[in-house]
Amino acid sequence: MVSKNQIKLINSLQQKKYRKLHNLFIAEGKKVIQELIDAKFNLEHLFVTKENLFDTKHQPVLIADADLKKITALTAANDCLAVFKTKEITFKESSGLELALDDIKDPGNMGTIIRLCDWFGISRIVCTEESVDIYNPKVVQATMGSLARVEVVYTDLTSYIKNANTEVFGTFMEGENIYKQTLPTSGIIVMGNEANGISRDIEKLVTQKISIPRFGTLQQTESLNVATATAIILSEFKRN
Amino acid sequence: MVSKNQIKLINSLQQKKYRKLHNLFIAEGKKVIQELIDAKFNLEHLFVTKENLFDTKHQPVLIADADLKKITALTAANDCLAVFKTKEITFKESSGLELALDDIKDPGNMGTIIRLCDWFGISRIVCTEESVDIYNPKVVQATMGSLARVEVVYTDLTSYIKNANTEVFGTFMEGENIYKQTLPTSGIIVMGNEANGISRDIEKLVTQKISIPRFGTLQQTESLNVATATAIILSEFKRN
Repeated sequence: MVSKNQIKLINSLQQKKYRKLHNLFIAEGKKVIQELIDAKFNLEHLFVTKENLFDTKHQPVLIADADLKKITALTAANDCLAVFKTKEITFKESSGLELALDDIKDPGNMGTIIRLCDWFGISRIVCTEESVDIYNPKVVQATMGSLARVEVVYTDLTSYIKNANTEVFGTFMEGENIYKQTLPTSGIIVMGNEANGISRDIEKLVTQKISIPRFGTLQQTESLNVATATAIILSEFKRN
Repeated sequence: MVSKNQIKLINSLQQKKYRKLHNLFIAEGKKVIQELIDAKFNLEHLFVTKENLFDTKHQPVLIADADLKKITALTAANDCLAVFKTKEITFKESSGLELALDDIKDPGNMGTIIRLCDWFGISRIVCTEESVDIYNPKVVQATMGSLARVEVVYTDLTSYIKNANTEVFGTFMEGENIYKQTLPTSGIIVMGNEANGISRDIEKLVTQKISIPRFGTLQQTESLNVATATAIILSEFKRN
């Protein structure tokens, strides 16, 4: 059984301001929830529509499908939903490559980028305050548990980069062919906003402009989506 | 003004069987529509909620926002919607690299993959009949016009690959590190279904198993999403 107050609370967590207020976020589906549990996120509530999805020590509460529908953030509800405490970010020294996100707005892109960082062993993502919140339900679903393994920091990106005192890479149309560069094992790689790319202020801090060459023969080929561009760039940095 | 019959027809085009029946599909947003016009797709209807979005020779019909809401396939309607004739696929000889999709189901993935092929100059995608339809409204939106520049063929993929008589690449956990391969400029690259990967029948036809190495230090890193894996693989084939 889900109480009226719980329904109200859980629905409110679809909005960033309530996630911040309560320090809570929701995750859905056995796989994502289990990975967050394994990564020591604190579980506050666990609702299931089937028995035996989780170890009883997590105290799953069996509810009706109709109740899950009332609290899901998905178009089609899964068979379980959990409420977790958000984690305090430990702003520790990082070494090696970091990814900087200059106003990524699309939750699917953010989720895909976090998964890519997990795959390629990039342990920290630094975002502008305006970037989409990692605890947005769509981001949580798209990360498939990688959320638990990549540190994501929201801060004043301009100051962060200035203070980092390292090489800063950014993709620009006129940048150098990335396939022909010798890429270092440390530095900051900046990825820009979906519509506007890298902002002017951040562009000034970029020490090396790079580009992914286009092979299509035709004139109007669209730019690459930011998540697929990130995939190609991280692959290039890591392949050697 | 949109007539009741037009509304009924256009809404029906959200389903594959009606797209097949009428040989029509819908596209929304100025950019996508203009690219499809430029690529000589035949325009059947063009509805706009603002003047001057398109050249008058395309005979845009001005309608109310409320009417556009009745025909849009998007959650938030844009300011224009067009109905186009689907194109007969000319099953001509291909040279160079081709991409084979073994049951890609997610429209976003299909759209991203078509964009990637456009970027990397892969002129043909061959799909199983069960793969998501390229004229699905979500695919059309995600391709951002690349639909006009990449040939997509639905066929019996097993027979197609058997008859192609060329090298066939597929990604598998146990495959050879893609970064250490000398990759050819022709052949077929197979990408598998989101949940199940490459099917057994197709796996038997793969002549070279490849893999994208994982750099994350932790145990449970998820597999890469099929669209991001495609990005990395096409980049590797084309970079030399």
